[in-house]
Amino acid sequence: MTEISKKGLGGVVTEGISESREPTEVDRLYEAFESAHLKPLWTQREGLMPIEPAAEALPALWRWSTLYPLAARAGDLVPVGRGGERRAIALANPGLAGAPYATPTLWAAIQYLGAHEQAPSHRHTQTAFRFVVEGEGVWTNVEGDPVAMRRGDLLLTPNMHFHEHHNTTDGPMAWLDGLDIPLVRQLDAGFFEFGSPQLATRQTPDKSRNERLWGYPGLQPIGTPVTPASPLLAYRWVHTDAALRAQLELEAEGHPGVVGAGHAAVRFSDPRTGADALRTIRCEMHRVAPGSTVAAVRVVGSSVWQVFSGSGVAHVGDQTWDVGTGDLFVVPSWVPFTLISVSGLDAFRFSDEPVYEALGLDRRTRGQL
Amino acid sequence: MTEISKKGLGGVVTEGISESREPTEVDRLYEAFESAHLKPLWTQREGLMPIEPAAEALPALWRWSTLYPLAARAGDLVPVGRGGERRAIALANPGLAGAPYATPTLWAAIQYLGAHEQAPSHRHTQTAFRFVVEGEGVWTNVEGDPVAMRRGDLLLTPNMHFHEHHNTTDGPMAWLDGLDIPLVRQLDAGFFEFGSPQLATRQTPDKSRNERLWGYPGLQPIGTPVTPASPLLAYRWVHTDAALRAQLELEAEGHPGVVGAGHAAVRFSDPRTGADALRTIRCEMHRVAPGSTVAAVRVVGSSVWQVFSGSGVAHVGDQTWDVGTGDLFVVPSWVPFTLISVSGLDAFRFSDEPVYEALGLDRRTRGQL
Amino acid sequence: MTEISKKGLGGVVTEGISESREPTEVDRLYEAFESAHLKPLWTQREGLMPIEPAAEALPALWRWSTLYPLAARAGDLVPVGRGGERRAIALANPGLAGAPYATPTLWAAIQYLGAHEQAPSHRHTQTAFRFVVEGEGVWTNVEGDPVAMRRGDLLLTPNMHFHEHHNTTDGPMAWLDGLDIPLVRQLDAGFFEFGSPQLATRQTPDKSRNERLWGYPGLQPIGTPVTPASPLLAYRWVHTDAALRAQLELEAEGHPGVVGAGHAAVRFSDPRTGADALRTIRCEMHRVAPGSTVAAVRVVGSSVWQVFSGSGVAHVGDQTWDVGTGDLFVVPSWVPFTLISVSGLDAFRFSDEPVYEALGLDRRTRGQL
Amino acid sequence: MTEISKKGLGGVVTEGISESREPTEVDRLYEAFESAHLKPLWTQREGLMPIEPAAEALPALWRWSTLYPLAARAGDLVPVGRGGERRAIALANPGLAGAPYATPTLWAAIQYLGAHEQAPSHRHTQTAFRFVVEGEGVWTNVEGDPVAMRRGDLLLTPNMHFHEHHNTTDGPMAWLDGLDIPLVRQLDAGFFEFGSPQLATRQTPDKSRNERLWGYPGLQPIGTPVTPASPLLAYRWVHTDAALRAQLELEAEGHPGVVGAGHAAVRFSDPRTGADALRTIRCEMHRVAPGSTVAAVRVVGSSVWQVFSGSGVAHVGDQTWDVGTGDLFVVPSWVPFTLISVSGLDAFRFSDEPVYEALGLDRRTRGQL
Repeated sequence: MTEISKKGLGGVVTEGISESREPTEVDRLYEAFESAHLKPLWTQREGLMPIEPAAEALPALWRWSTLYPLAARAGDLVPVGRGGERRAIALANPGLAGAPYATPTLWAAIQYLGAHEQAPSHRHTQTAFRFVVEGEGVWTNVEGDPVAMRRGDLLLTPNMHFHEHHNTTDGPMAWLDGLDIPLVRQLDAGFFEFGSPQLATRQTPDKSRNERLWGYPGLQPIGTPVTPASPLLAYRWVHTDAALRAQLELEAEGHPGVVGAGHAAVRFSDPRTGADALRTIRCEMHRVAPGSTVAAVRVVGSSVWQVFSGSGVAHVGDQTWDVGTGDLFVVPSWVPFTLISVSGLDAFRFSDEPVYEALGLDRRTRGQL
Repeated sequence: MTEISKKGLGGVVTEGISESREPTEVDRLYEAFESAHLKPLWTQREGLMPIEPAAEALPALWRWSTLYPLAARAGDLVPVGRGGERRAIALANPGLAGAPYATPTLWAAIQYLGAHEQAPSHRHTQTAFRFVVEGEGVWTNVEGDPVAMRRGDLLLTPNMHFHEHHNTTDGPMAWLDGLDIPLVRQLDAGFFEFGSPQLATRQTPDKSRNERLWGYPGLQPIGTPVTPASPLLAYRWVHTDAALRAQLELEAEGHPGVVGAGHAAVRFSDPRTGADALRTIRCEMHRVAPGSTVAAVRVVGSSVWQVFSGSGVAHVGDQTWDVGTGDLFVVPSWVPFTLISVSGLDAFRFSDEPVYEALGLDRRTRGQL
Repeated sequence: MTEISKKGLGGVVTEGISESREPTEVDRLYEAFESAHLKPLWTQREGLMPIEPAAEALPALWRWSTLYPLAARAGDLVPVGRGGERRAIALANPGLAGAPYATPTLWAAIQYLGAHEQAPSHRHTQTAFRFVVEGEGVWTNVEGDPVAMRRGDLLLTPNMHFHEHHNTTDGPMAWLDGLDIPLVRQLDAGFFEFGSPQLATRQTPDKSRNERLWGYPGLQPIGTPVTPASPLLAYRWVHTDAALRAQLELEAEGHPGVVGAGHAAVRFSDPRTGADALRTIRCEMHRVAPGSTVAAVRVVGSSVWQVFSGSGVAHVGDQTWDVGTGDLFVVPSWVPFTLISVSGLDAFRFSDEPVYEALGLDRRTRGQL
Repeated sequence: MTEISKKGLGGVVTEGISESREPTEVDRLYEAFESAHLKPLWTQREGLMPIEPAAEALPALWRWSTLYPLAARAGDLVPVGRGGERRAIALANPGLAGAPYATPTLWAAIQYLGAHEQAPSHRHTQTAFRFVVEGEGVWTNVEGDPVAMRRGDLLLTPNMHFHEHHNTTDGPMAWLDGLDIPLVRQLDAGFFEFGSPQLATRQTPDKSRNERLWGYPGLQPIGTPVTPASPLLAYRWVHTDAALRAQLELEAEGHPGVVGAGHAAVRFSDPRTGADALRTIRCEMHRVAPGSTVAAVRVVGSSVWQVFSGSGVAHVGDQTWDVGTGDLFVVPSWVPFTLISVSGLDAFRFSDEPVYEALGLDRRTRGQL
């Protein structure tokens, strides 16, 4: 039998066959397979079952300096409203055949809302969050609870929560939307409902009701109705920043806390369970101290990073990019990744790791993530 | 704004735009999106986020009378060995663009092993089982433990367990292989390793070692090493049959036990946790008493059925089929399903429901499954 | 057979016997039991297995006006140091035969530390907390992490954490200690180790290291070592107070949040799991708005309350007490309880409910706790 | 300060005080504590918080040759019926001050039912099992499901299941009852209800309905109503024996399976969860091959052993006993234990370990249990 290639093994047997046996009978067999809607494993095992993950998604970078102006032009040209629902512009991974997906499981988009615009209410089984890299003035009403959106905040819209957005200011605002659209699409698990065309509320409180109930460290309100998703829907920058700063200060004082030298990180969690804030998406904020590195690691599953402030150099597979505020990049499954910063950097990361952990498919090399 | 169609909503805004605004600017915007690897949500929301699951996979049927002879011809024409690894012929759902997938998450194949043939050792992160609709004489060695395969048995090959098969008889044997290949492929989570080219053992004991340790109702051996997968790898027909018979007898005696009138069912479980026997695949055996029905139900997630004995009529969406022993059919996500039998029927079912339950995406109408 | 008394049933059979049979044979049998270390069930079932819990512990009240002066006298007369370890004075429930136990599972004590005194380091399997009803100036070093103790704060000392206390001021300080000493004693599960006679640290930071890592709503530091107990060891009054105030404000605005009308409550939780902050003890803070009530309820398991501020009337079984700041009272298992306040009241509560929930023994009538 | 004794530390400070300070003031303080229902920790810490568990329960042995005749005499002299409820004779640990408890958490008793006698229906929050060391002919009806009791069988009566027993033969039968009466009593968590005075059923099927539904390895009936306790209520000797035999055979063949050399063991589990068959009591069967040993171990928590067949020598703390069929002995918390058999031995063991594991209080030295 011929040698087994290192990369893959499919076709080996077939090749062998085509040399040593009467081809026409095999051909007829394969035709019979085709007409019976059958596929032999042995001609394609390598592609189906690679030696290690060989993601079709590619390492890819989108610059904020490209994204924001395009979103603004869309703001001028395309109204937002019922049907299209959101003025969201999705990152389409160049490896994914034109699908509007950042990775095989994750959707990432810039959403843009002009002065005094609103995006109408709907809900869906897809899980969503918003992360704000700049600006403020939009409130997202989640199940009727108005949640302010401001720089550095992470705002959740769990599975089947009605939500709508409205801009209360004279200027536009843009932010990052993350969803599990590709995963839910692939799993044929999507349900979608339109909500009322009228805003549930025009209130613009500083603190949402969910924060007033759940926004305290380790305190659980006993009287709150139990829901399957995180009851806390807003994670404010003031806390995230303080938590990251404290980790680096503790490191300087000689105490544990950081993920790696000069690398602080927090995970956003459901305060009622301690699990990931969202069931299918992990959200984290990372801070790399000046001269430090997010150590090299390979993870099964994909992630999207957005630089929040500062700058650095990202190595993703064979790609190397200088990245700065607002820039977004994708790390496909099992592709080596490192992030280095000379001057310091904060970056938001979201990934599909909870999916793999729930299914027993998670795997990683030693590293910091 | 134009009316919202019942089926979907994408494109609505765009159409509106194309009528009321200068098209060339929008066109230029869309071109800019394209060249920046961006996709607007509003032109495609309907397809991405349908009102309810609209599976591309189709209801489909494969007859045993077609499958088995083709497998036998492959047995004559195609050797089994290193590289192709297995003489397995996969059901290719006609809705899935030529992919060798029964559903978007499940692989189903007939594997055929001729007299005294062997299929070499390997292991992978994909989870697998074998179900035997007829014949015997093959042993599957799982991590070196020889497991007999006989009519009605369910045999497990969990994630990363080395396995190889060998036929000890003078005749061929065929069976159903089920795996989560499409899911793992989509998630870029597959790892694959070749094992030794030599059989780990040629022993052909009646009972495998895992059964000798774990094959007792409710008894856990304390000294057995703990593994992440089910330690019980074989579920024998004698037990399955007795369990189904007892449910129907209890029903006749006026006691609870059946899923619905005349419909008995057991789920194969990990005796150490009570969870599904496999982490990503649910396996069940159903018995429909003469004149009874598996009540109509819609489930998010897909399943594959194989009739084990008897006959009936399956309604899957707009399809209606007479089905008999060995016939395989697919129920895509959220497609209505009923199974009726005049003369009685046993059927094996496997599905991806554990995936949905782990991710909070499970949903069903009232019904029996 | 004689009538069954409502209260219990033991002895019924024996009485019957003593009337109708030769007593000496039965007497000899009972003597034989006694000498063989045997006890017949039928003579004592009522006491062993009552119709409903009949706690030996009694409703009981200890007034702060009594406790504090006695603690102060002990401060003058009794040194604190190695061996006795702590100047802690335990509530001894009058129903528990002189045992130093507030309830069958819970220990509650006033601990008093004079100016510049210290209590030496030790650790034990018993779980502990401190709650501060007044004063400040003591730091408790938990595994070397200095934790400030101030009015309204809850401080944890989980299972097998080394801890020591030292008073940095010129005045004394007293607080409530809660432990599961009776439970662990009954279960013969106690291990105890002395620590160093020297203070681990004399630092008096405003914020402990555990708070710097874990004291943010919903944020989990990724790099922190995993421990079996709550990593957050201090719950500060500023947060507790704000959370309770918000619940009552939300109630006034017409939104859910309170446990009952005018009754706000928070539970202290482990931020990594959402479970009770301590494995065997539940800690809660309750606020009763002026003119409001903690609705009547019966709970299996016992609790200790300490009024933190304000005043009210507690009904515990057949007892009625006016209670004010610092007063402590015990609610035994299944004894009816209500708390009413005309002028408003804050109260700290701790209970053994996690034990019952873990063992499937929890039960309660409808009510607010 | 005086030296700290190795055993304990209480009283040390007080002694110091009595020498160096005015005793009358301290005396008055202690009197004031007493009248205020207060107890100082420092005078009693050692007893409350020992260095390691110092169980009051003693190693103790009850011989079947004593127990059975006494139970038979009780059968002649004491009727069984409403009120006393059961003719059960409890092992009273000599260290537990006359309480009818085998250990601080476990009740163990011989129950005896004469020819054609019945024990009336009741239910309670206490968890129970029956284990049969000899005889047969009694059916226990559990929630109306008649369960045969035969030599070697373990029969469950979970929390709040109505149960009654009746002897269908002309001869008496005796068995071991195990309950968590002391634990539930200590926790004030007991509820008790009388059932109907009439037998729910006089049927005497070979197999109970729960076994017909759940008595198959790894098979879960889908249609069965979900209950909080194990749905399987009978574990038959034929399976237990086969499982133990297989472990020793596998050991002889060079495969893993035994707990230690020549020591096989199975744990009885809830087939729906894999957890212990009972929530508060662990049940196991052990087989010691001729010339083998249950290796020395210390476990936090207590256990009761009953020799089922064969003989051996048990070392429990400073006690050494020759033990044979039917003999019962107690291993208190943290007392060293070994069991040696020259000729081979089977023994049933039950313990309170699930309680400790649920509360995070479990601890053991390396060993086999």
